[in-house]
Amino acid sequence: VTGLQPRPRDQVEIVTVGDEILLGATLDANAAFLARELAAAGFQVRRKTTLPDDLPALRQGLREVRARGGVVIVTGGLGPTPDDLTRHALAEVFARPLTTRPELVAVLEERFRAFGVAHLPRVNLSQAELPEGASAIPNRRGSAAGILLEDGESTFYALPGVPAEMRTMFREEVLPRLRERAGGGLVPVRQRLLRTAGIGESVLAERIADLVRGRDVPRVAYLPDLGSVDVRLSVAGLPPEEADAAIAGLEGALTERLAEWVYGRDDDTLEGAAGAALAARGLRLAIAESCTGGLVSSLVTDVPGSSGWFAGAVVAYDDAVKRDLLGVSGDTLARFGAVSRETCAEMLRGARTRFGTACAVAVTGIAGPGGGTAAKPVGLVHLGVDVEGDVRLEVRRWPGTRREIKARAARTALLLLLRAVEARPA
Amino acid sequence: VTGLQPRPRDQVEIVTVGDEILLGATLDANAAFLARELAAAGFQVRRKTTLPDDLPALRQGLREVRARGGVVIVTGGLGPTPDDLTRHALAEVFARPLTTRPELVAVLEERFRAFGVAHLPRVNLSQAELPEGASAIPNRRGSAAGILLEDGESTFYALPGVPAEMRTMFREEVLPRLRERAGGGLVPVRQRLLRTAGIGESVLAERIADLVRGRDVPRVAYLPDLGSVDVRLSVAGLPPEEADAAIAGLEGALTERLAEWVYGRDDDTLEGAAGAALAARGLRLAIAESCTGGLVSSLVTDVPGSSGWFAGAVVAYDDAVKRDLLGVSGDTLARFGAVSRETCAEMLRGARTRFGTACAVAVTGIAGPGGGTAAKPVGLVHLGVDVEGDVRLEVRRWPGTRREIKARAARTALLLLLRAVEARPA
Repeated sequence: VTGLQPRPRDQVEIVTVGDEILLGATLDANAAFLARELAAAGFQVRRKTTLPDDLPALRQGLREVRARGGVVIVTGGLGPTPDDLTRHALAEVFARPLTTRPELVAVLEERFRAFGVAHLPRVNLSQAELPEGASAIPNRRGSAAGILLEDGESTFYALPGVPAEMRTMFREEVLPRLRERAGGGLVPVRQRLLRTAGIGESVLAERIADLVRGRDVPRVAYLPDLGSVDVRLSVAGLPPEEADAAIAGLEGALTERLAEWVYGRDDDTLEGAAGAALAARGLRLAIAESCTGGLVSSLVTDVPGSSGWFAGAVVAYDDAVKRDLLGVSGDTLARFGAVSRETCAEMLRGARTRFGTACAVAVTGIAGPGGGTAAKPVGLVHLGVDVEGDVRLEVRRWPGTRREIKARAARTALLLLLRAVEARPA
Repeated sequence: VTGLQPRPRDQVEIVTVGDEILLGATLDANAAFLARELAAAGFQVRRKTTLPDDLPALRQGLREVRARGGVVIVTGGLGPTPDDLTRHALAEVFARPLTTRPELVAVLEERFRAFGVAHLPRVNLSQAELPEGASAIPNRRGSAAGILLEDGESTFYALPGVPAEMRTMFREEVLPRLRERAGGGLVPVRQRLLRTAGIGESVLAERIADLVRGRDVPRVAYLPDLGSVDVRLSVAGLPPEEADAAIAGLEGALTERLAEWVYGRDDDTLEGAAGAALAARGLRLAIAESCTGGLVSSLVTDVPGSSGWFAGAVVAYDDAVKRDLLGVSGDTLARFGAVSRETCAEMLRGARTRFGTACAVAVTGIAGPGGGTAAKPVGLVHLGVDVEGDVRLEVRRWPGTRREIKARAARTALLLLLRAVEARPA
């Protein structure tokens, strides 16, 4: 809506280093993370470059980036092994020799000692070397310190490529400096993620077509994943209040239209939402899972504090386990089979009884690639939830690989659980 | 061993165009696809650049790419809407005005007629415009023809960004031309992944430093993930037999040196290797897991056919579950705590007994972020395996988040299992 020319101080380049990306073996998720964070903070990413683990090519690439000036975020190539060349390339590009920093050696020694390694491996010593005049960017999650290097024209922030380390360092160390140097007046891209599960991308898009058609603000994007679709609403270049109002308006309409499938916003997860709903009601959960093989349970235990509301699970892969540990009757298994509504219902009951909980989730199905029949094909999954006696049983059939079917079934089970728990008074 | 300089005709740059990538809303999967296809065909991707949907920036970026010469694959920005600017930018960079090609208009009209649209939408007319001297690259899956544009120094192949269209056009139209122009003699990159677990990147690198130092062929790269490190050996620019011999030589030496930690090659997984070892011996497995919360079990059931050797699991999150379902004694829990060698040993025994299997895995630890003490800090994990009475108990401590600790513990448990099973006669 405005023709705002972003000032150069708002503009950033991203450089990722690594043959793995240039070979297509790794998606460049670090660059995507940085791009999202920078946009949210009001910076514009003007270019993204990937360079190889090869000193001449890396040097040449960084030289060209430097010549364009401004702020550059580099990730990768700071590890301890000989294919980690970013520090050498930066030293050459800025013509500042590498020197060992005793304070970084001390940090490394301390780090290795804490994990029971008495002597710092020699290869890690290279991680204590920085170009002259550079500052170290602390890394409290790993051994590679980052490098901050600048001259009159350009500022380089080099971070390791290990995602967890890079993310923490970017948020805690780099972003605050970028903000301070930009000196305010940044217009962040505002955005909201509406998170849905249990509905496909095209059906969802059709359901909201009349609300979205012909709209420029907010922009709407659909981000499908296994068993879930995120709807992204974003506004760039408008003052925050105006942007937020535009997002809130559409968000309200979409949330109402998609009420059955929306489980949260932004960083919310399905398992986190289900856990919060359980915790709010003082309910405890047990799980009986067959074809998902522990995945529902693993997702649930990704939630910090889940021990407060999750008792445990039985992964009943073998029919004998369904019988012996969950009390599914031999008669039910013989008459209806392990993949049936009847078995699912008995698994549910068995889980509640065994673990003594008020709620249970049960899943039984055929994840493939083998084991399917005409009557019970691969992808057929029975799901059940029991929340204080409110029992809901559903059956679905999904396409896809074994892992995809597991993922879809686990997400759908968690959505059923969330809906059933929400139906109880908090 | 050789200093072979790869010939420029083998070298390719990839350019992707689109604000969605620079905003981090989309992972650059097109670039990864192209990179994989090019490497497999014997081309080297020397750089990957992403440019915005903005004419001045796009023009400037393409100008710099062109100045480096050689073959360039561009994707994105060929659609019919005003933010599709690649054809305009190329026309300006090569100083060749856009002209409407009647034969492309005819193709578009035919395409729309086939879908029941009598009149070609005006916006689509722009898709019939090409820079003077350029050739069209046919697109049988969509409306955007590609553009082939060259001069003495460089050759640009511009393709649409819609993945299905781009992939088909690349394989059917671009790759055959690249091969023809390279005139044979292309040498695919040969590679091998040695997969290890249970050893950190820097300790691993140090162990093999003498085998790797000063070597150019094969190139060695370290790819760390949670609880595992892949060592990639690759050779570019040598005839396949020579490359394979070089890889096999180093692979043999590394496998011997790292025997304790290597679990497979290329696409092998730890859970797949453990499953194959169990299946070869007719052994069945049960799992008792606490802090990993179902993750070990979920990994195991990712393996197709795992129902042949996996009976099931108990996720004993609650201490009462350790007691009631796994038979851990109340006395052991009271004296040593849930996170102890003693409890781990009893979980192991309980799992074998409960499920009636010859083998079991047990994991109990503190995944955090809460629940740690000075004596039992976050990241402390006890692991156990029992293979027909061969009981092995270990304790580890890892840094990281809850999910990281879960992942490291699960991988390490699977490695312990694999080693213990391998120790039995097959």
